Amino acid sequence: MKIRERIELTLTNHLKRLVQKPCPPHFAAAIEAAVFPGGGRVRPMLVLAVARALGVDEGHPHLALAESGAAALELLHCASLVHDDLPCFDDATYRRGLPTVHTAYGESTAVLVGDALIVGAFQSLIPFTMQSGREALAGRMLAIVGDAAGSPRGIAAGQAWETESSVDLVAYHDAKTASMFEAAVMLGALAAGDAPGQWRPVGRLLGEAYQIADDLADLGGDAEWLGKPVRQDARNDRPNAARHLGVNGATLRLRRTLAAACEAVPDCPGRDGLVELVNGIGMRLLTVAAPAEATPDAAVA
Amino acid sequence: MKIRERIELTLTNHLKRLVQKPCPPHFAAAIEAAVFPGGGRVRPMLVLAVARALGVDEGHPHLALAESGAAALELLHCASLVHDDLPCFDDATYRRGLPTVHTAYGESTAVLVGDALIVGAFQSLIPFTMQSGREALAGRMLAIVGDAAGSPRGIAAGQAWETESSVDLVAYHDAKTASMFEAAVMLGALAAGDAPGQWRPVGRLLGEAYQIADDLADLGGDAEWLGKPVRQDARNDRPNAARHLGVNGATLRLRRTLAAACEAVPDCPGRDGLVELVNGIGMRLLTVAAPAEATPDAAVA
Repeated sequence: MKIRERIELTLTNHLKRLVQKPCPPHFAAAIEAAVFPGGGRVRPMLVLAVARALGVDEGHPHLALAESGAAALELLHCASLVHDDLPCFDDATYRRGLPTVHTAYGESTAVLVGDALIVGAFQSLIPFTMQSGREALAGRMLAIVGDAAGSPRGIAAGQAWETESSVDLVAYHDAKTASMFEAAVMLGALAAGDAPGQWRPVGRLLGEAYQIADDLADLGGDAEWLGKPVRQDARNDRPNAARHLGVNGATLRLRRTLAAACEAVPDCPGRDGLVELVNGIGMRLLTVAAPAEATPDAAVA
Repeated sequence: MKIRERIELTLTNHLKRLVQKPCPPHFAAAIEAAVFPGGGRVRPMLVLAVARALGVDEGHPHLALAESGAAALELLHCASLVHDDLPCFDDATYRRGLPTVHTAYGESTAVLVGDALIVGAFQSLIPFTMQSGREALAGRMLAIVGDAAGSPRGIAAGQAWETESSVDLVAYHDAKTASMFEAAVMLGALAAGDAPGQWRPVGRLLGEAYQIADDLADLGGDAEWLGKPVRQDARNDRPNAARHLGVNGATLRLRRTLAAACEAVPDCPGRDGLVELVNGIGMRLLTVAAPAEATPDAAVA
């Protein structure tokens, strides 16, 4: 099974538990709309790609653990998007080309959808803490999910930086973006029984690249193609690396960061395939990031 | 140490991790304001009282586990209050006599405070899944916390019922209130190594009593004494049992439910002390619930 199919199937199965009876029907529909159709599913893809590079694939006893770690991160990511789109944050009316959850289902429902998805992320992994021989591994994976989600270094803290009167840019990007990418590669490594620490730099660099690309895209990306509003950062006066470095400088930094991420991939049986996947993510980022006003020279710098 | 002191100390310790550097400072202050000063701390008190009735007290190796279960539920409870107070829900400007989190720190910060507290609830128990001999126990406690927090039977689903066009009253009260009280007694029992199932009815009945008291209080309680606005249900056209049964009928039902909760306490070494605590909660509920327009006859019925 292809990784993308595996992710959709896993998410479908995990979501079934959340929307089953007696879940309020309007709420159930809103939960599903927050997760399907998905975007790039980049974080869960990284979890499964790292696990596969380390030998966890079809038939491996830890595949379900890797899948559940992947689902946990994607549910957290979806939760953060739903809350980030709220009127008190970005006030976005569409995402991925569809109405945002609060636009379609109401603001209070959207707040609760985010809450239920955060809980659901932990619930994806909790059952493994009761399976003989996997307890400690599942516990370590849960700890990583918690760190990436909460405070002081997870998404909640990262989004909170956007409302502070003075912003620590490093802490902001670490918490808002890098934390989840670090978690992704570490969860994949842990599920395969590998030491997660040596994988962390790959996630960190990818997170950095993602943040630069996002900032560039916000500066001048194609709203229709992206499926979400652009120029939100300037509008909301939020920190944006591309506004600091300029389009050419930011594009160059994006390319260098992506190359460093590939180099940081540790030696492992499936290293080549994994580097290819990371390169693919990079190509996609460069496309998404290409702002309308970028000069051709900048794009190949 | 008295149970209440133990709870405040445990919450202080758990919160320290959430607000430590590099937590954004405005966000850290908002997180603390969401948890301190507390209200009745009824849910964590139940966790520790059940654990103590079963022998888990000072010096017992599972005391920290019980304390962390107690902290988890209180953090979840605080998160649900912060989100429930938001303009898109109750639009409450004060709680426990102080400005609500969104009033004092802004709406977007309040959404994120709730998120971080939900994550923090799980983080309270996750470390025990990595402690030899306690993994499965901690896992079972985490599963209970997840069920009480999320969907389809936890607080998120319970609050979501308030926005549905048609309400299943039993599912609504089960999810919004009973789930947390059931979780409280079950977490206390589990920490002591007792079967949690036989404790569930105590929590269910207490949750039912709490809901009736809350409905009565909302109907005519003393706003200043309660520290939160009253008549929110009628204002927001939300389901309220006291509006259905009438003040006298609801007060009678509250007394009967409290008596049933005491009777449901299983035999255990500290049964008498626990029944006394449940009775104390009952007395407090009857005081809080006494609406201005209740006749003296109704109050002693």
